[in-house]
Amino acid sequence: MKNFADKLVEAVKAKGSAICVGLDPRLDKIPRFLKMKAIEGGDRTPFGAAAAAILEFNKGIIDAVHDLVPVVKPQIAFYEIFGHEGIKCYEETLKYAKSKGLLTIADAKRNDIGSTAEAYAQAFLGEVSIFDEDEEVVMPVFDADAVTVTPYLGWDGIKPFVEECKKYGKGIFVLDKTSNSSSGDLQDLEVVEKNADGSQKSTMALYEIVGHLIDSWGANDIGENGYSFVGAVTGATFPDQAKRLREIMPNAYFLVPGYGAQGGKASDVAVCFGGGLAGRGEKGLGAIVNNSRGITNAYEILGYDESKYAEAAREAVMKMKMDLASVI
Amino acid sequence: MKNFADKLVEAVKAKGSAICVGLDPRLDKIPRFLKMKAIEGGDRTPFGAAAAAILEFNKGIIDAVHDLVPVVKPQIAFYEIFGHEGIKCYEETLKYAKSKGLLTIADAKRNDIGSTAEAYAQAFLGEVSIFDEDEEVVMPVFDADAVTVTPYLGWDGIKPFVEECKKYGKGIFVLDKTSNSSSGDLQDLEVVEKNADGSQKSTMALYEIVGHLIDSWGANDIGENGYSFVGAVTGATFPDQAKRLREIMPNAYFLVPGYGAQGGKASDVAVCFGGGLAGRGEKGLGAIVNNSRGITNAYEILGYDESKYAEAAREAVMKMKMDLASVI
Repeated sequence: MKNFADKLVEAVKAKGSAICVGLDPRLDKIPRFLKMKAIEGGDRTPFGAAAAAILEFNKGIIDAVHDLVPVVKPQIAFYEIFGHEGIKCYEETLKYAKSKGLLTIADAKRNDIGSTAEAYAQAFLGEVSIFDEDEEVVMPVFDADAVTVTPYLGWDGIKPFVEECKKYGKGIFVLDKTSNSSSGDLQDLEVVEKNADGSQKSTMALYEIVGHLIDSWGANDIGENGYSFVGAVTGATFPDQAKRLREIMPNAYFLVPGYGAQGGKASDVAVCFGGGLAGRGEKGLGAIVNNSRGITNAYEILGYDESKYAEAAREAVMKMKMDLASVI
Repeated sequence: MKNFADKLVEAVKAKGSAICVGLDPRLDKIPRFLKMKAIEGGDRTPFGAAAAAILEFNKGIIDAVHDLVPVVKPQIAFYEIFGHEGIKCYEETLKYAKSKGLLTIADAKRNDIGSTAEAYAQAFLGEVSIFDEDEEVVMPVFDADAVTVTPYLGWDGIKPFVEECKKYGKGIFVLDKTSNSSSGDLQDLEVVEKNADGSQKSTMALYEIVGHLIDSWGANDIGENGYSFVGAVTGATFPDQAKRLREIMPNAYFLVPGYGAQGGKASDVAVCFGGGLAGRGEKGLGAIVNNSRGITNAYEILGYDESKYAEAAREAVMKMKMDLASVI
């Protein structure tokens, strides 16, 4: 089973970019013609029509960018907001992206323990067994290539995902230092490190401790390119912390949110690259930089007619590619 | 708008119990006759049949216990594992519980920031606006009374939920000290507290810091009974920590997992009660104790035929009620 990190490296090299397109569709940013088509196009519930409009929108974006980027990351909240019909659209978005040769990261930030975490891991990464009495059916559900997870519950909350990753060649990205302004409420707290006799040795920020945990959680599963399938989320808005985390986690692939709309610049994300076997010698590996609104809403930013949203997204990706190339 | 904590107090008094029934259905524990009925009962996909069996099972449990308990807590992972058809079953389970006069806690442990957290908060607690151009439709989605959330992203990840709570009379339970054995990986870390001049004053466990944060996040929204709509999750498996958290968060309602199957005893959960205006004078307030498998799988535990799963669940609730009454 190929390690997810190796699949990611291959895709990054094949596409010549380390860009992740975030598919976080907001109904008020979906072009009117797509919404009208969805409303008029059949006997749909309001949520069903919303989901249909979003799926069409996503397909347009995917068609426009799939040859330029290795991976897309739909954020499940923007689908779950339309209930089960939104979740169906989420499934179809993942499937369509896969059919176009893209890797997919389900941005779901799941966190739980025991059989609950197993259920999440099977749903997002693995397969589910149904009716094992008379006829056993084993089927994938979301079948994403990777999923984001939250570390607050410790190893119990991570292990079930790691097991599915091993079994199915999938990956996880564990939240470490997030891009939001209040991320420090917990993540920047200064934690006491102790000597063997229990006395205080030094202190370390919580995000650094989490970095060490992520490093240890992935230590047994490092692929050919020196990266583990246990990656880390490190916000582009905190470059100093990201630099420190690159040192702490030499084998982790970084998923970097916060570029663009949230204020992160190419020069800020540059420190996230590196690690792995290639170290800083091989450029463009070790991090994928996410951009959501900056690409999917590019038609507004560029002042294009909304009918040209897909072309605008393609232009935004090409511009971002050049922007990143200037620093890595 | 009535504060969620006051609704909870009313329901606890009306039902004379502080029990939360966890609806975490696992297909291998669903009675065979329900699965056969679901398979034979229509032109269903495998996931659709699984969802149909689970919904019937849940309705049986709800019918059997709704007059004995104030609240049910379906864990969304066990529904999401069947994709959008599972999520439809989740919606229907919440709706059915509500129709039987039960409060509902969506156990989803959501965590994100900005517009993403807003989307989650609207989906679980509030309403969603659709197609605001030609015809505005505003609809609830899951419409739970409360949702569980994770604090790792800080206030940015909590605020959007608090806003929906205010607007719709809903509540949240923030993970603090969870019931799993590795919960200490992060939650027990010793954090440095500083003096105004930056020198080290003392240390405090991360779960205590999170307790202080939860206390402050709920400080503006305390209801008539002295409890805030910002509650806390504190595992029954860590009674010493729960006792400390009860002191730190006098206004938080505690949601207590870990009783029964995970090893928590009535004597362990006793410390979670108290707080509020009533303090420890009024018994049975301040905490709701969750039990999932111990109730929904009681037919196995009691050695009953699976056709009697609902009766067994009712017996298990009555036994738990007596068990809790012995210590509070």
